[in-house]
Amino acid sequence: MSKSTDPRPQDQFAKKAEAWSARFSEPVSDLVKRYTASVDFDKRLAKFDIQGSLAHADMLHAVGILTQQDLADIRRGMAAIETEIDAGRFEWLLDLEDVHLNIERRLTELVGDAGKRLHTGRSRNDQVATDIRLWLRAEIDTLTDLLRQLRHALATLALQHADTILPGFTHLQVAQPVTFGHHLLAYAEMFGRDAERLADCRKRVNRLPLGAAALAGTSYPIDRERVARTLGFDGVCRNSLDAVSDRDFAIEFCAAGALVMTHISRLSEELVLWMSPRVGFIDLADRFCTGSSIMPQKKNPDVPELARGKTGRVNGHLVALLTLMKGQPLAYNKDNQEDKEGLFDTADTVRDTLRIFVDMAGGIQVKPDAMRAAALQGFSTATDLADYLVKKGVPFRDAHEAVALAVRACVERGCDLADLSVDELRAFHPLVGEDIHAVLTLEGSVASRSHIGGTAPARVREEAQRVLDETRG
Amino acid sequence: MSKSTDPRPQDQFAKKAEAWSARFSEPVSDLVKRYTASVDFDKRLAKFDIQGSLAHADMLHAVGILTQQDLADIRRGMAAIETEIDAGRFEWLLDLEDVHLNIERRLTELVGDAGKRLHTGRSRNDQVATDIRLWLRAEIDTLTDLLRQLRHALATLALQHADTILPGFTHLQVAQPVTFGHHLLAYAEMFGRDAERLADCRKRVNRLPLGAAALAGTSYPIDRERVARTLGFDGVCRNSLDAVSDRDFAIEFCAAGALVMTHISRLSEELVLWMSPRVGFIDLADRFCTGSSIMPQKKNPDVPELARGKTGRVNGHLVALLTLMKGQPLAYNKDNQEDKEGLFDTADTVRDTLRIFVDMAGGIQVKPDAMRAAALQGFSTATDLADYLVKKGVPFRDAHEAVALAVRACVERGCDLADLSVDELRAFHPLVGEDIHAVLTLEGSVASRSHIGGTAPARVREEAQRVLDETRG
Amino acid sequence: MSKSTDPRPQDQFAKKAEAWSARFSEPVSDLVKRYTASVDFDKRLAKFDIQGSLAHADMLHAVGILTQQDLADIRRGMAAIETEIDAGRFEWLLDLEDVHLNIERRLTELVGDAGKRLHTGRSRNDQVATDIRLWLRAEIDTLTDLLRQLRHALATLALQHADTILPGFTHLQVAQPVTFGHHLLAYAEMFGRDAERLADCRKRVNRLPLGAAALAGTSYPIDRERVARTLGFDGVCRNSLDAVSDRDFAIEFCAAGALVMTHISRLSEELVLWMSPRVGFIDLADRFCTGSSIMPQKKNPDVPELARGKTGRVNGHLVALLTLMKGQPLAYNKDNQEDKEGLFDTADTVRDTLRIFVDMAGGIQVKPDAMRAAALQGFSTATDLADYLVKKGVPFRDAHEAVALAVRACVERGCDLADLSVDELRAFHPLVGEDIHAVLTLEGSVASRSHIGGTAPARVREEAQRVLDETRG
Amino acid sequence: MSKSTDPRPQDQFAKKAEAWSARFSEPVSDLVKRYTASVDFDKRLAKFDIQGSLAHADMLHAVGILTQQDLADIRRGMAAIETEIDAGRFEWLLDLEDVHLNIERRLTELVGDAGKRLHTGRSRNDQVATDIRLWLRAEIDTLTDLLRQLRHALATLALQHADTILPGFTHLQVAQPVTFGHHLLAYAEMFGRDAERLADCRKRVNRLPLGAAALAGTSYPIDRERVARTLGFDGVCRNSLDAVSDRDFAIEFCAAGALVMTHISRLSEELVLWMSPRVGFIDLADRFCTGSSIMPQKKNPDVPELARGKTGRVNGHLVALLTLMKGQPLAYNKDNQEDKEGLFDTADTVRDTLRIFVDMAGGIQVKPDAMRAAALQGFSTATDLADYLVKKGVPFRDAHEAVALAVRACVERGCDLADLSVDELRAFHPLVGEDIHAVLTLEGSVASRSHIGGTAPARVREEAQRVLDETRG
Repeated sequence: MSKSTDPRPQDQFAKKAEAWSARFSEPVSDLVKRYTASVDFDKRLAKFDIQGSLAHADMLHAVGILTQQDLADIRRGMAAIETEIDAGRFEWLLDLEDVHLNIERRLTELVGDAGKRLHTGRSRNDQVATDIRLWLRAEIDTLTDLLRQLRHALATLALQHADTILPGFTHLQVAQPVTFGHHLLAYAEMFGRDAERLADCRKRVNRLPLGAAALAGTSYPIDRERVARTLGFDGVCRNSLDAVSDRDFAIEFCAAGALVMTHISRLSEELVLWMSPRVGFIDLADRFCTGSSIMPQKKNPDVPELARGKTGRVNGHLVALLTLMKGQPLAYNKDNQEDKEGLFDTADTVRDTLRIFVDMAGGIQVKPDAMRAAALQGFSTATDLADYLVKKGVPFRDAHEAVALAVRACVERGCDLADLSVDELRAFHPLVGEDIHAVLTLEGSVASRSHIGGTAPARVREEAQRVLDETRG
Repeated sequence: MSKSTDPRPQDQFAKKAEAWSARFSEPVSDLVKRYTASVDFDKRLAKFDIQGSLAHADMLHAVGILTQQDLADIRRGMAAIETEIDAGRFEWLLDLEDVHLNIERRLTELVGDAGKRLHTGRSRNDQVATDIRLWLRAEIDTLTDLLRQLRHALATLALQHADTILPGFTHLQVAQPVTFGHHLLAYAEMFGRDAERLADCRKRVNRLPLGAAALAGTSYPIDRERVARTLGFDGVCRNSLDAVSDRDFAIEFCAAGALVMTHISRLSEELVLWMSPRVGFIDLADRFCTGSSIMPQKKNPDVPELARGKTGRVNGHLVALLTLMKGQPLAYNKDNQEDKEGLFDTADTVRDTLRIFVDMAGGIQVKPDAMRAAALQGFSTATDLADYLVKKGVPFRDAHEAVALAVRACVERGCDLADLSVDELRAFHPLVGEDIHAVLTLEGSVASRSHIGGTAPARVREEAQRVLDETRG
Repeated sequence: MSKSTDPRPQDQFAKKAEAWSARFSEPVSDLVKRYTASVDFDKRLAKFDIQGSLAHADMLHAVGILTQQDLADIRRGMAAIETEIDAGRFEWLLDLEDVHLNIERRLTELVGDAGKRLHTGRSRNDQVATDIRLWLRAEIDTLTDLLRQLRHALATLALQHADTILPGFTHLQVAQPVTFGHHLLAYAEMFGRDAERLADCRKRVNRLPLGAAALAGTSYPIDRERVARTLGFDGVCRNSLDAVSDRDFAIEFCAAGALVMTHISRLSEELVLWMSPRVGFIDLADRFCTGSSIMPQKKNPDVPELARGKTGRVNGHLVALLTLMKGQPLAYNKDNQEDKEGLFDTADTVRDTLRIFVDMAGGIQVKPDAMRAAALQGFSTATDLADYLVKKGVPFRDAHEAVALAVRACVERGCDLADLSVDELRAFHPLVGEDIHAVLTLEGSVASRSHIGGTAPARVREEAQRVLDETRG
Repeated sequence: MSKSTDPRPQDQFAKKAEAWSARFSEPVSDLVKRYTASVDFDKRLAKFDIQGSLAHADMLHAVGILTQQDLADIRRGMAAIETEIDAGRFEWLLDLEDVHLNIERRLTELVGDAGKRLHTGRSRNDQVATDIRLWLRAEIDTLTDLLRQLRHALATLALQHADTILPGFTHLQVAQPVTFGHHLLAYAEMFGRDAERLADCRKRVNRLPLGAAALAGTSYPIDRERVARTLGFDGVCRNSLDAVSDRDFAIEFCAAGALVMTHISRLSEELVLWMSPRVGFIDLADRFCTGSSIMPQKKNPDVPELARGKTGRVNGHLVALLTLMKGQPLAYNKDNQEDKEGLFDTADTVRDTLRIFVDMAGGIQVKPDAMRAAALQGFSTATDLADYLVKKGVPFRDAHEAVALAVRACVERGCDLADLSVDELRAFHPLVGEDIHAVLTLEGSVASRSHIGGTAPARVREEAQRVLDETRG
């Protein structure tokens, strides 16, 4: 393909400050420029924009649209631009709206006509969709690794506390004794599901929209599968109208992020509660806490509180994206520019939060004595007493009722079930035997729950080991 | 295991109207009963509650907790209860709070002590989690099939209209010509991703929580894997605390449902727009429309409008569930009872909407003439003109600018690009040749976009066929 | 106005099962009927629909459109219909779509042509908007009274516990001693703001849309101000397009409801926490609690937990309505039918929750000893020590640091500040005097905060009395 | 009050990089510092923080806690700090967490002990609550003025187009003719309600939390009402626990902002639709539009599209704040730090959007011919024909049916009602007279709707004038 022989129609960007293109009779107003420009936030995609452009240029050359020289020019120019950006020397212009035009304009400045040819067979619509997917894929990989690290840290602590007993709560009332290791592994399960969800989401992120051009594809003989291979995509988006307007993957990612934060919020709620002096099950290392500007004694669990609060913003971003896409006709509409900030902030929030939780897991100081004292309060082995009776042949519903009567008597006397003598217990059911007190110990209770998923120390050790094996770095 | 030998402690439900259990000194107030009871909505789980109970009973017998006679009694009782429910003769009592206690109480009434033994080794906490998962699994299977049918219907119509040209819009401005078949297939892609997401969600739904009991597992020698096999679960939840408190799967389902409805809302927006008289691309059969109580001429596209509106409720249910779970400490809390109504309504809404859209796809009357007329308006082949110049060696950015000047001239004259003579066009760029008008036809434009994902009729036929093959019933 | 002289064109509803109107060539499909009908839920507006129709009829008669006989017929017919509805004898037909057509059809059945004349000068669009506003106004009045009752109950309890000291928490860490009465009054403030918001919302609810007809007003000489007076509206909506499409008032109500539930969720969180055995500040009467199907000792605070969970659904309804209205073009669209269920459920949820909290306030059993014990833990008077030093001339930041050192020494020794001797305290700052221990008492601490808004018992009594005066029934 | 006589305990901030306070044994980790610091975004409150501090200092002096010299020092220091901030010379330190500590630290650096005394009788908890309220009050005032300007601009355009007829749509189907002025005034009503809501919200924003200190008030003899007067607050928050934890006002503001954006989204939807070539009712001036990087002919309505998209982020912030506050126990928790970014962005988004819409209203080019042509299509005067019959004595329901038959005949013939002769019309109802065609004109139709709220030109002029009078700057 020969070089341009006629200079008359000027480059589209040359007078952009005067009018968007030759089709326009007045320049975009300054207020509108500021309102509609995205370069302030989408410049973070620069690295991926360049990566996508290089793959596109490679393909254009392979199919004969770009000459070897064009390709070499573009590669050289892009390398220079990356260096400028890394060094903070790249000049981002609001007039050029977004990361794409800024880079393309600079490229043309650096390498001339080859830069003007780069946009052949693509549009900003498919270009930005490609950039976001490349960026999000990298973020998912980072988050997946952080989830692995967090599960590893939880399982490590769980293994240490496979025998440490605390009260298991339902309704924040003492229910049955559980081991602290078992409790921690519940979170390892949650974060494990989060990793599964991200992996599933990644499959749908990792498809190439480039080649959809503005909305209908292009009349150039492009090779989309080559571009997909170059960029490591699993496949290509099979419909151009869908490719430029699809933001499902962003919503699916935010939904997965909202679940990560929901789990973080639950763990945080417990950390804050456990560190409250009336509970006192744990302490957090000073480096994760701050004090008060007025109360000299305060040491506040800022990190879990703030993390719990950040659940809100991630839920909010999910709602923002769903609201954004509701009722949008095909294909690309400017509304879609609003997809980025919430998506970026979701990834940032989840990443920073996971990173700090990985670190904080090592700063949890467990107080086994306080846990044990709490487990001895609140009739935590009442179910064991009922089960004891059932094993002697009492139907479960009758056993339940007999124990309820015993508990009520204890409440009135201000004592625990274990404080009652065998005879006193037998008054509630004649099948109570001399072996009853063994059943009422915390250790007996937890050890008896040894099936898959149960709280028995042996089972907890096994599960913790399984998680450790899965999450080895 | 022998029968109960002592009748003294009464069945827990016998006096439930007087006090919750023997541990309570006053009955639950009527206001509280109404506020906390779930039986009005969770009775829809009855079939799954019975299914789960039968699998549990089978296992209890296999491990020696229930006798053969107990098992037979329970099976007989449950069969009777199913018959009563199907016939509308089952008496649901608010006093018994929920579907579980209602069924268990009736079972005990019907078969005596065997009924009282059924609850051995489980709790309502793991029981309800099992019920919901069984129910949701069935719903997912139904929705998956409806998505298949809808994609089939869209692809069928797409195949018929692989050559029908309408303007492709971006920003609701005419962008480039596309084929109607291509446009329809964009939705087939969206609904295809929805089906993928449901399949991924199903994996996490299809794990057995039963055996977690209240929160810590049970001291009975249960065989959870047997129960999982009986009920068709892929695996068992590996941590009891997580098992009873996990509602991730419900949130993930609602998020998937919100995306289905988002796609429906986009398609609906277009149907409403296309049926508006100024656009007039389609008509909907009368049976999908209603009139006005006051304006005799009206025929309103109620179905797509209402479907678009229903996006709101599904988004709302997603937010409700996320809000619900935020900051909940382990393990089960009564808050979780709020998981059901929104989840039920999400499934109902998505199911009813998909069903009606499957039907409505056959009621879309396409008006090719109106589509074509619109495509001829708005310079839809301007990009083709620019591409023509590029192929002659003009850098893309210069070609873009030359065409923009030509468009501006046409706007001022009130004509289209195709109305200009070759000489007039050449005034905007000297490389315009005699072959230029072929490039400016709608047919030429769409046919040239023949790569994967492009709008060319041949490609559309191929893609439509692929979807038809994938979705054969 | 004479009676109809020609019977040929049949009544619009007569053959509705065959076609929507004469303009339609096929009946609405059954699936569509079920999907689009609202009568199942909007029949709850019947009373308000009739009230609105009677005011409309009265006006039509006043301006000469209806004869005296017509008006009498309509009144008689509507009275009969109300009786039928109250008695459960009214037959609601899905074929007739909604509450409006059902009632109008029955009216015509009962009184003939007068019924057919009633719809003159109005449309279902302005009719339903009027119905909802009348209904919502009544709901707001009910909720306002319940908020008053709840504030009264809280202030009553606050007055009883103006001197009861518990630790005030920030970050769930002990901060400073406060009185329980003061703590309760914080909620009285929140619910007071809720009542203000409802009053503000009511102003915008209480405007008459009737007369907007379908969207443009009507050519009949209607008197909208007369109708507004009859129905007790403060004014009339001043633009017909806005009147039929405005749902701001519903969104504003849901937002106000979401704040009520947010406050309820905070109070619930505290009730659940306070009732947890490790905290033990209160007990809830048995009638507000339920037990466990498996753990005989359990007494669970179901009501506050469930109320906390219900925050989710109300937030969800708010999101649903905002999603619904986003991007809707003027004027009425069928989407708007989706405004009702979420709005109804919001009002129901807030009403039921407030009602039960009014009742539950009387069931809170306060445990002052546990509160006091907790206040003595955690250095709650450290700020008082710092303030003591400041009053002796130490700059606040230096005093803060001296006390922080003292606290750290106590943590290491496992004692409280009050356990240190004067000399020991003086080691941390030389200005500590013999009067220091008076400052470190709980009573001294709370009494010293006696300004407006402070926790001093005298101030709490004054504020409680103010609230009691404001909320007298 | 004398100066500190003992230098031993060091200033709390002096070694903050080493440990939060003397109570801490290790410094806050860098990761935690970055995670928990708010100075990056809350520094925008600096002006209000200083304003609040000056009012606090004035009061401390008035009640005798600060000397005249202290007060003078503080004023001098704060003036210097403001100058530094305005000049961009103020050094914001992450180590000092937030805007409050940064300013206080610098103040102490500048003026010594007086700076250390400033924090007497307050805490960051009440300080930040005061800052946000001062900031938000100013934002509300700005938004209120912008709403006034926008209503003025809309009414100005409405007055110009009081006679311009376009089809009024319901369900995006032609319903009845309306005037464009009437249509624009519908939005003036919406934005008027927005202003009302902001005024109501402002009442609850404008209450002083300062004096609540950390949570319980303070033992210093503060004069909160003096501070309120100085700062222009309407009153003081009457409960200290509530004062530091209340974020209702932020949520209420976001809800009001969400409604503003909902209205903007509706107007935007219409602008985009009206500018679409098939509709062509308006054009937007070039300065509000941008082009395409690939399609040279494109002129896209970016501003309304982007504004419509921004509805999502504001809805999202509302959800974020509601999620944040759900279930938070009293009093202040670190979660609350998350209140700011969403709130800031809501105010920024609404402000920028309103500003650009004020400007854009002047760039709307109305195309009356296209509007009229559309109004002549779609039987927009069918209701007038029915009303004509009713006025001759036909019951409304019968008239409706007669006209529906006529419309159906026209659809089949492809003509309009006005194209039928009197005789042909009479075939549908014998009461049709010679005067019928006057009723079927667009002008006759709109002029007849002249009651309050109707679309008649005379009425529209009156209403537009009313709005202009209300919104005079």
